Amino acid sequence: MKLSKATYMGYLGPEGTFSHCAADIYKKKYGLKLQPYSSFITLVEAVHKKKVDTAIVPVENSIEGSVGVVLDLLANYKTIKIIAELALPIKHQLLAKEKIPLNKIRRVMSHPQAIGQCRLWLNKHLPHADIVETSSTAIAAKTVSESKEHWAAIGTAMSKIIYKLQCIAEDINDYKNNTTRFLIISTQDLTFDNNNIQNYKTTIEFKLLHEPGSLYEVLGEFAKRKINLTRIESRPTKTELGQYRFFIDFVNPCNEKIIQELLSALNKNKKVSTLRVLGSYPSSLYNKNNTT
Amino acid sequence: MKLSKATYMGYLGPEGTFSHCAADIYKKKYGLKLQPYSSFITLVEAVHKKKVDTAIVPVENSIEGSVGVVLDLLANYKTIKIIAELALPIKHQLLAKEKIPLNKIRRVMSHPQAIGQCRLWLNKHLPHADIVETSSTAIAAKTVSESKEHWAAIGTAMSKIIYKLQCIAEDINDYKNNTTRFLIISTQDLTFDNNNIQNYKTTIEFKLLHEPGSLYEVLGEFAKRKINLTRIESRPTKTELGQYRFFIDFVNPCNEKIIQELLSALNKNKKVSTLRVLGSYPSSLYNKNNTT
Repeated sequence: MKLSKATYMGYLGPEGTFSHCAADIYKKKYGLKLQPYSSFITLVEAVHKKKVDTAIVPVENSIEGSVGVVLDLLANYKTIKIIAELALPIKHQLLAKEKIPLNKIRRVMSHPQAIGQCRLWLNKHLPHADIVETSSTAIAAKTVSESKEHWAAIGTAMSKIIYKLQCIAEDINDYKNNTTRFLIISTQDLTFDNNNIQNYKTTIEFKLLHEPGSLYEVLGEFAKRKINLTRIESRPTKTELGQYRFFIDFVNPCNEKIIQELLSALNKNKKVSTLRVLGSYPSSLYNKNNTT
Repeated sequence: MKLSKATYMGYLGPEGTFSHCAADIYKKKYGLKLQPYSSFITLVEAVHKKKVDTAIVPVENSIEGSVGVVLDLLANYKTIKIIAELALPIKHQLLAKEKIPLNKIRRVMSHPQAIGQCRLWLNKHLPHADIVETSSTAIAAKTVSESKEHWAAIGTAMSKIIYKLQCIAEDINDYKNNTTRFLIISTQDLTFDNNNIQNYKTTIEFKLLHEPGSLYEVLGEFAKRKINLTRIESRPTKTELGQYRFFIDFVNPCNEKIIQELLSALNKNKKVSTLRVLGSYPSSLYNKNNTT
């Protein structure tokens, strides 16, 4: 099934978040409709119940690491597959109602992660300002747009437009390679226009029996087939401390048969339980240096 | 150096947080003095600058997973060592100014993690109440103690005492095995009273060259010495997406020489860079089933 103007994509709102910026790329490219949700759980539940055809969810950031709640939801909703991924550079802007000099700004508002990612810049340029945390970058922009004070928000280019704000300073991130990786998920076999795709990736998820060397044995199945892992992540199983579930991303080998052999070997391995393929999807990230 | 009444331990405040509960165990056992800090960075910086002798920091929770910011700080402050660990069961209580029936409670306040961990209980018992997020469980308890409304906080037994609140419902966690693992860190060689310690653990941290099979090779060094890994965690290096730093916890083998051989083999491995031992410390967790 192809994406169309009748396809709905859900994202974590409110309007103007980085998730909205990411979803907007698909809106512009494929003409699909967007629908904000107020939490990750309601968003993933909406995909599961087919209230939306697809959703875009952040899964890791190059500074902050994994978005644990998203990984846990992907593990719990067995109907949902990963159908694509997107790596979006994150550029923070300082936004205010009007063009005021930095030394007039009395308060800066944003989500704690955005504040953390601009900490050095804030210490250098706005040491006199109060820092106030909000539940999203979009809420910060909205609050600044409604205030009569000399306040500023750290937010996206999109929230600048939505809340009619001015950009006081651009690209204020302390780390210049700040990138978030989003996954596009669905219960349906939606397909994108796959021109120019050079690589596919696969994400699998499994638990391991608690025996010394189990993980080593699993990684051996990849190594002996020369399959490149791009990421390995552990999450608690929520039963007791020290019990983990693993997520592995790998680059699909040219020969499809090798993946079938790998999955068959993992399924036969008595130390691996509840193995599930979350999806095979076009890779927007693959770089031959990114392997472990 | 032994812990004494002149030893200061820092923790993430304000008073009444779970970190405070954990620190209080050491206060009672060793008579040391406690000092709250307002953020993880100021806390770890205080240890580095020897403003406090030691600090207690949460590193993973059985439901929420790793505390990424703490792992990143441990990797960045090379002077700091792990000297002990503590696994503390997390029990949430519903606290109010007076003993009121559940159906009279109009608002429940707490840290988003505590709210998330009691979500099913709240949906069942307080479906009519507003849920309001605060920056810590202690702030929620303080706000409830100062309000004249029928509000309640999800908090610790300690914040109940500090803010003179009543317990309306005990142990309201959805997952009964909710446990947080804390690390005790210092720049000094502080030692605890080590009676009855059966095992020691070691935590190491390293980066890997980006070559297929690197991680497999590293895990092989553990497997061939039959060393039990209790945890493996990856964190972004903050340079670019797809670049990770690894943290491995393992149970020390009875024969100390084996650790020296392991570390020497890892140091010689050209795919491993910036290997550092964060500490060898008495294990409060080791269970022969907890291995990967």
